Amino acid sequence: MKSIKNSLSEKFIINKYLKKLNFKNKGTFDFENDGAYLGFNSKHYKLTVTTDSISEDIDFFSNDDPKSIAQKITTVNLSDIFAMGALPHSYLLNLHLPNHINENWLNLFSSQLKKIQNKYGFYLLGGDISKSNKLIVSSTFFGSIKKKLEIFQNKFNLYDDILITGNIGESKIGLEILKKKISSNINLKQYFIKKYLYPIPCKIGPLIANHVNSMKDISDGLIGDLTDMLNDKYGALINVNKIPLSGKTKKILNNKKNFRLEDLLSDGDDYELIIISSQKNRNKIFDIANKNNINVTLIGKIISEKGIHFDSHLDVKNIKKFDHFS
Amino acid sequence: MKSIKNSLSEKFIINKYLKKLNFKNKGTFDFENDGAYLGFNSKHYKLTVTTDSISEDIDFFSNDDPKSIAQKITTVNLSDIFAMGALPHSYLLNLHLPNHINENWLNLFSSQLKKIQNKYGFYLLGGDISKSNKLIVSSTFFGSIKKKLEIFQNKFNLYDDILITGNIGESKIGLEILKKKISSNINLKQYFIKKYLYPIPCKIGPLIANHVNSMKDISDGLIGDLTDMLNDKYGALINVNKIPLSGKTKKILNNKKNFRLEDLLSDGDDYELIIISSQKNRNKIFDIANKNNINVTLIGKIISEKGIHFDSHLDVKNIKKFDHFS
Repeated sequence: MKSIKNSLSEKFIINKYLKKLNFKNKGTFDFENDGAYLGFNSKHYKLTVTTDSISEDIDFFSNDDPKSIAQKITTVNLSDIFAMGALPHSYLLNLHLPNHINENWLNLFSSQLKKIQNKYGFYLLGGDISKSNKLIVSSTFFGSIKKKLEIFQNKFNLYDDILITGNIGESKIGLEILKKKISSNINLKQYFIKKYLYPIPCKIGPLIANHVNSMKDISDGLIGDLTDMLNDKYGALINVNKIPLSGKTKKILNNKKNFRLEDLLSDGDDYELIIISSQKNRNKIFDIANKNNINVTLIGKIISEKGIHFDSHLDVKNIKKFDHFS
Repeated sequence: MKSIKNSLSEKFIINKYLKKLNFKNKGTFDFENDGAYLGFNSKHYKLTVTTDSISEDIDFFSNDDPKSIAQKITTVNLSDIFAMGALPHSYLLNLHLPNHINENWLNLFSSQLKKIQNKYGFYLLGGDISKSNKLIVSSTFFGSIKKKLEIFQNKFNLYDDILITGNIGESKIGLEILKKKISSNINLKQYFIKKYLYPIPCKIGPLIANHVNSMKDISDGLIGDLTDMLNDKYGALINVNKIPLSGKTKKILNNKKNFRLEDLLSDGDDYELIIISSQKNRNKIFDIANKNNINVTLIGKIISEKGIHFDSHLDVKNIKKFDHFS
């Protein structure tokens, strides 16, 4: 026990790389306390919380750029915060670091975190560092939302609209390219790999929170996450031709016979949002999306017949919900 | 990537073992949502947060009883909450599970969590499960404390009392017995091993919060944690004979020449509290301790000369602060 040695002490890492992410907020750990007072005291807002981990060999490759790992751990959590209709407030980090992590790695990792913190306006409260033989990063994010608002994943009504932000499947294609299961020209390759390594959360959630019934981010493929939302109570009828795909994705699907639309729906960390909302709010949501340059597409509606149904043939019997764990 | 297979799905583990720990609190993940609304809305209390991880081969042995692992992950966090003067409110779990984790393990682990939740009155908000080749458990705990109270680890004055709860060194002796570096009779063995496997947080923190200047739990040995509190600003003068040791510990120290008091101060997850308080509050603190059947011992005072000084000879030059990470 306690036999693993490394030249970088916990204190060194904290002082040199993590303290700067604290953005001088008082009452936080400041990394000199074992705990923090959450500087959150509002009459009008309440606190939301979410937690997620990413692990070497499961969610990223061991030699991935540390900037990509920083991007992924923040996006996976920010995406949940936005899906709750909340804005990010602060976060905690649990770093499980193997021996090969060096100062260069820590510098790139913490610089990317700082960049993302500045972009969305949140800060690091504190955390915990331990040794591990594989790299694992866990993070707990806090968000703020108006006190009267609550958005759950499965509270909606029959015939509600099913909408989706952005385009589907690009991260999955990037992963398949990295695994050498898809080849393409160099420009397309770089485009899709970037989508896989640097996913961006869709921030429309808090902007439309007043007008939706449910929201969820896509982290396990559209079908898996929509199935979770339906919760075996309702069904969904999806208009296959409406599923938003970029021109580049269509090119890949046309060129590659063994790789089909189904593969892009059953898996993939899209981090786009599935939005379920009343038909009467449809135009309002499109208006807000347009004003913020975010693509939102109506892809179907909630029906009473359980399960996910497609209006044209899709070989979905082979589509299985991806389980990060099993 | 995603190649690890296991018969237990994330959903199965959540439904069978984790949902019951939610204690039917609304607004929480309920494990059907990616996030939770922290059901905390008080005029008089504010929220504190702390996070800690424990890892196989560092903080526990791989074949340790799952009940011990549940005890450790809660004690390491509860201990921080109590040291802040707060009461536990709720928590999140990040479970990184290797393949050998089976239903029996999950049953024992979650039953122990339930028992501890009932004892101290807090509930599971939600969490995240992923695969790992080593068992790692991270947890984030939320506590509540009166709005005007803030207890930091290093805000105290010259000549303040240094007090300590319970007895020191028993968990460390238990670990040395498990590592076969100390032998003893079977009764003593069982006593100390239990202290190592089932550490109990000292809950006096919130009871004396009005009367102390600083508190910190001992998770890296008395010397390491006191050094952190002194923060290179002050020093401590410790009365060696006052350091609280149980009769059983004294027996071990008398019998074992290679194992000394110094070894019990430089390392060890005691989870007792170091309390630094004004002399004028000494009797008040002892009164509260007595009423609650908690032992508190005055072991020294804050002095201006930096470092930790002992009133009789201790071979402390070999004592190094234990760093869980390096």
